[in-house]
Amino acid sequence: MMALKKSVELFYDVVSPYSWFAFEVITRYQHKWDINLKLKPFFLSGVMQSTESKYPAMVPRKLTYLKADVMRCARYFDVPVKLPKNPTELLFEKGSLKAQRFLTALDMECPEKVEPVSREFWMRAWSRDEDLSHDSSIGEAASQAGLSHQDIKYTLARLKDQDVKDRLRKTTSEALELGVFGSPIIVADVNGKKEWVFGSDRFPILAQILWEKWEGPCPDISNKL
Amino acid sequence: MMALKKSVELFYDVVSPYSWFAFEVITRYQHKWDINLKLKPFFLSGVMQSTESKYPAMVPRKLTYLKADVMRCARYFDVPVKLPKNPTELLFEKGSLKAQRFLTALDMECPEKVEPVSREFWMRAWSRDEDLSHDSSIGEAASQAGLSHQDIKYTLARLKDQDVKDRLRKTTSEALELGVFGSPIIVADVNGKKEWVFGSDRFPILAQILWEKWEGPCPDISNKL
Repeated sequence: MMALKKSVELFYDVVSPYSWFAFEVITRYQHKWDINLKLKPFFLSGVMQSTESKYPAMVPRKLTYLKADVMRCARYFDVPVKLPKNPTELLFEKGSLKAQRFLTALDMECPEKVEPVSREFWMRAWSRDEDLSHDSSIGEAASQAGLSHQDIKYTLARLKDQDVKDRLRKTTSEALELGVFGSPIIVADVNGKKEWVFGSDRFPILAQILWEKWEGPCPDISNKL
Repeated sequence: MMALKKSVELFYDVVSPYSWFAFEVITRYQHKWDINLKLKPFFLSGVMQSTESKYPAMVPRKLTYLKADVMRCARYFDVPVKLPKNPTELLFEKGSLKAQRFLTALDMECPEKVEPVSREFWMRAWSRDEDLSHDSSIGEAASQAGLSHQDIKYTLARLKDQDVKDRLRKTTSEALELGVFGSPIIVADVNGKKEWVFGSDRFPILAQILWEKWEGPCPDISNKL
């Protein structure tokens, strides 16, 4: 049988805890499954505005449910989420534009750093309830992820450059053209045929699309290390 | 260790294909897991109106995604869904009031028939694209599920009785008081502590709540037969 050519793209925004779950699971599977993984930081707020979508967290009874659901999912996915005291401020007031631009700029220069820096961004916002909207906060997270002082300074200085802004807009548009309305989005490409799923709860279905085996959120990867 | 006292309630409406997935999975597990299962037909349209919620299927880009998602889930859950030609008519014009009242009336007289009749309702609406809004359609499904001509006639005659209407309203209110905003809802009660999940994609989490093992959508139940 001819080998299938399989790649996966993860569109995500660090403002979203469900995106964190999807990010951790797909990075755990990236060497277990026969896939090329591409992380694609996009701007969720841009998606929501363009599609005139309402964040579920803006509806009081949904917010109540989501708080319980996020904590149960955190346990299931083994991701150290702690609810921020003021999720509304994090989601809708402070937002993630600077963080997502930072990841975008990083992706243009040293893409291998996007994974550890994204993780540290989530650790701040969704695990330690720390700010992620100031340059200093972003710098601290990047430093935690192993970026040098010089690289951090350089990348922070890039945040207002047109090419960085354009690139984030382009990634967001790319997702919009697929027909998305939220985050995370996982796009599977098998021999050129693309299918996408929404959310962190479609991994068993993603596995079917990819002809791979779903072994739960914490697969045994010891034989691959 | 003292045995845990565990029960599960499934709130569902046959208008919803995701409710069908949850219904099939939970009925497969009802004798595998150590649970008492209670099926609770409620009225989704009442929930949506009371909570001023919008059906995702009313948003064009969500509808496009949902069609693909439902078919992929059908394969994953091994449930023979076929998309109706006109889901909007099924969901929003014809609706499910009569079907849900029929299940309610049935639950008051012979609760053991609620499971097979619900299944036949879904088979009509979500597998064979047949009507489910006329007495004759409901009668045919009930007959398929093994109800006698006499029982069908009697139950159809009960649809406008006040006690049947009140009972469906009461079940719907009960769900609303939990804080729900859609269907299906699965309520787990472990030693008197209640938790609920929304959707057909929270079974691994439901299993954690119930201290049971999730073995995928089609568990081996041969040893229990």
